[in-house]
Amino acid sequence: MAKIAIMGYGTVGAGVYKTLAMNKDAIKRRVGEEVTVKRILDLREFPGDPAEKLVTHEFTDILNDTEISVVVETMGGLKPSYPFTKQLLEAGKSVCTSNKELVAAHGVELRETAREHHVNYLFEASCGGGIPIIRVLNTALTAEEIEEVTGILNGTTNYILTSMAEEGKEFGDALKEAQEKGYAELHPEADVEGHDARRKIAILSSLAYGKHINWEEVPTEGITKVDKADIRYAKALDCKIKLLATSRREEKGIWALVAPMMIGSENPLTAVGGVMNAVMVKGNAVGTTMYYGSGAGSLPTASAVCGDVIDCVKHKGMTIRTEYSTENLTLLPVNEVPRPFFVRMKGNEEDAKKAFGSISQVIRLEGLEGEFGFLTEMMPEKTFREKLEKAEGVINWYRRGKMEEEQEA
Amino acid sequence: MAKIAIMGYGTVGAGVYKTLAMNKDAIKRRVGEEVTVKRILDLREFPGDPAEKLVTHEFTDILNDTEISVVVETMGGLKPSYPFTKQLLEAGKSVCTSNKELVAAHGVELRETAREHHVNYLFEASCGGGIPIIRVLNTALTAEEIEEVTGILNGTTNYILTSMAEEGKEFGDALKEAQEKGYAELHPEADVEGHDARRKIAILSSLAYGKHINWEEVPTEGITKVDKADIRYAKALDCKIKLLATSRREEKGIWALVAPMMIGSENPLTAVGGVMNAVMVKGNAVGTTMYYGSGAGSLPTASAVCGDVIDCVKHKGMTIRTEYSTENLTLLPVNEVPRPFFVRMKGNEEDAKKAFGSISQVIRLEGLEGEFGFLTEMMPEKTFREKLEKAEGVINWYRRGKMEEEQEA
Repeated sequence: MAKIAIMGYGTVGAGVYKTLAMNKDAIKRRVGEEVTVKRILDLREFPGDPAEKLVTHEFTDILNDTEISVVVETMGGLKPSYPFTKQLLEAGKSVCTSNKELVAAHGVELRETAREHHVNYLFEASCGGGIPIIRVLNTALTAEEIEEVTGILNGTTNYILTSMAEEGKEFGDALKEAQEKGYAELHPEADVEGHDARRKIAILSSLAYGKHINWEEVPTEGITKVDKADIRYAKALDCKIKLLATSRREEKGIWALVAPMMIGSENPLTAVGGVMNAVMVKGNAVGTTMYYGSGAGSLPTASAVCGDVIDCVKHKGMTIRTEYSTENLTLLPVNEVPRPFFVRMKGNEEDAKKAFGSISQVIRLEGLEGEFGFLTEMMPEKTFREKLEKAEGVINWYRRGKMEEEQEA
Repeated sequence: MAKIAIMGYGTVGAGVYKTLAMNKDAIKRRVGEEVTVKRILDLREFPGDPAEKLVTHEFTDILNDTEISVVVETMGGLKPSYPFTKQLLEAGKSVCTSNKELVAAHGVELRETAREHHVNYLFEASCGGGIPIIRVLNTALTAEEIEEVTGILNGTTNYILTSMAEEGKEFGDALKEAQEKGYAELHPEADVEGHDARRKIAILSSLAYGKHINWEEVPTEGITKVDKADIRYAKALDCKIKLLATSRREEKGIWALVAPMMIGSENPLTAVGGVMNAVMVKGNAVGTTMYYGSGAGSLPTASAVCGDVIDCVKHKGMTIRTEYSTENLTLLPVNEVPRPFFVRMKGNEEDAKKAFGSISQVIRLEGLEGEFGFLTEMMPEKTFREKLEKAEGVINWYRRGKMEEEQEA
């Protein structure tokens, strides 16, 4: 019997306890032994909870328990999760986490510590909730040179953008609704400003390209600038506005970006609605693949954590070999990436052509007199921004996602 | 350096050689050592091919070479691939294959042989080409009770159905075009009659539910009955006709089925076009997940084989623990599964109601006078078939896929 502990009995931690109990038999079948929770660390008490008697307030009750071989860290934040994780790994216990903040900040170091002590530091649940994207990158697409990773990695913002598009809501109202339904937090900055997606694309890209990407270096724009009219323009162009977290390997290096972009029906991510997440991975042999599922929620996220726990139990005394490097990757400036841009501006088409050169797909919408929207030619972002600076009357603009006909390659 | 051999230098075998060469550096980074091809078994010669000098016609050159630790089997069929694979495993070599025929027929036994000899028999490429669906079931969704597996698992039929829907072609013309483009074989029965998808759903379902499903017991219908008019009716119902390979866990047991079905835009598989494949897996904790990619082709399939090779090299001397059982699973009769049915018939709505009870979504199409289409209420297939037998004037019918509003759960 494998004994584990859970640190942090919140939404995900409680989901882990529930999943291990609910699927006890299936897990035993697959692992060859039972996996049970021996201890739960939380500052609170949980009277009446089935796990009530397992709760301790003392970290050392877990750290010093030699029976416990795997610890789930679902506390979030950096303190005390960072020192706790470090000590557990040094004590020869594997740690499985959903804490993307910690993985993005100290993941490289913690993996190294795990390796030194022949244990594992796994974090499937840190990106894409229940979607097994980390395992796909670490253990499935291992014969690939990954060329691109692009995902809808934040459920909150996708919910807001979907409800703006489908119900015609303004950003503020859609956010309020998301908060009422529990899909957005009271302080939603980490989500709506793109920081959550930023950490996740940094983690996924580090695994995909084999060098460490500092999440703070990923250029990031949130969705607060998106308004109802922008979405009407997108619709008229047969597009949707989605918060994409993306990175791509070019000849000269790798760039990454988190920003709301206009994407069309040629892109399978366009169909991903509500709180769902999806990640597209393009490899030089396999071509385009996509992975779709619940990006958050108690049980989907817990499912990913439990998958990691099971992997640790199966690989007792052995570090699962995955590609990672402590070497830092310097990102290419996104300024050099060429693409078409959508621009919404006041004035007339002549002004637009003067400012941006050749334009196409000019859209005028009812009720928005005196302005129009259009697409520019493909140009490096740097060039576009220079033109933008000189242009007058621009109301808003978006990057247009790739328009290649590659979907059915 | 890990040395491997390839048996069968056809489309996939050559793709494996090419992928290992092309991505040599990435693979070395991830495995910790180089992976090179030492021998290729094929009856033919390949003058001018980069691998020309590795070719042998003697199986024993591979079997008796103690340097070769992993063998790729891309010969297809059962003879001689079955005895060759068996001997290699017994000689302590791991085998990685794309041969779904062999996996469906003798997979259980070969895995058992591998286990006895502390090696691996891996077959990621046997289902879904480059989509890492086997690894997802074996190593990612391990904390789940899987409730459903539904896929578009055959690229040839999906290409034909897509081209019928998008270009209004008749089945025969679409098949001919697929043959000309190399997407369908000269003798296309295995694809169009559904046998290929049948083997694949048997393999995936065996892994998902943990007991062996005999592929010959999966009720299977091909797409030869699909005609242009059926597809026009589907369109009018905002549906597509797709060849689905599906299995589901019910309270009383598990059923499986391969058949063309009408599915609507609420189902993410509806958007999967051309030769692409996708698999939806539903678990009791993670909910609905989906995996999408190239279901065939030299490099995508080779990528999956190479991923297996890498896993074998990483797990030298150790059988990767996965859930499988030599116990056979008796499938529930599909007759008991309730769903709505689409019926296309001659006569009038009164006849339809008399025959099938309450009907909805009645469709009449231009140019198809004297007939119409409609959906029945939800009923067990057995009940539907009884009604069908007594009804007069029925031209064709389809199962309607699930219509639940679960996509954005």
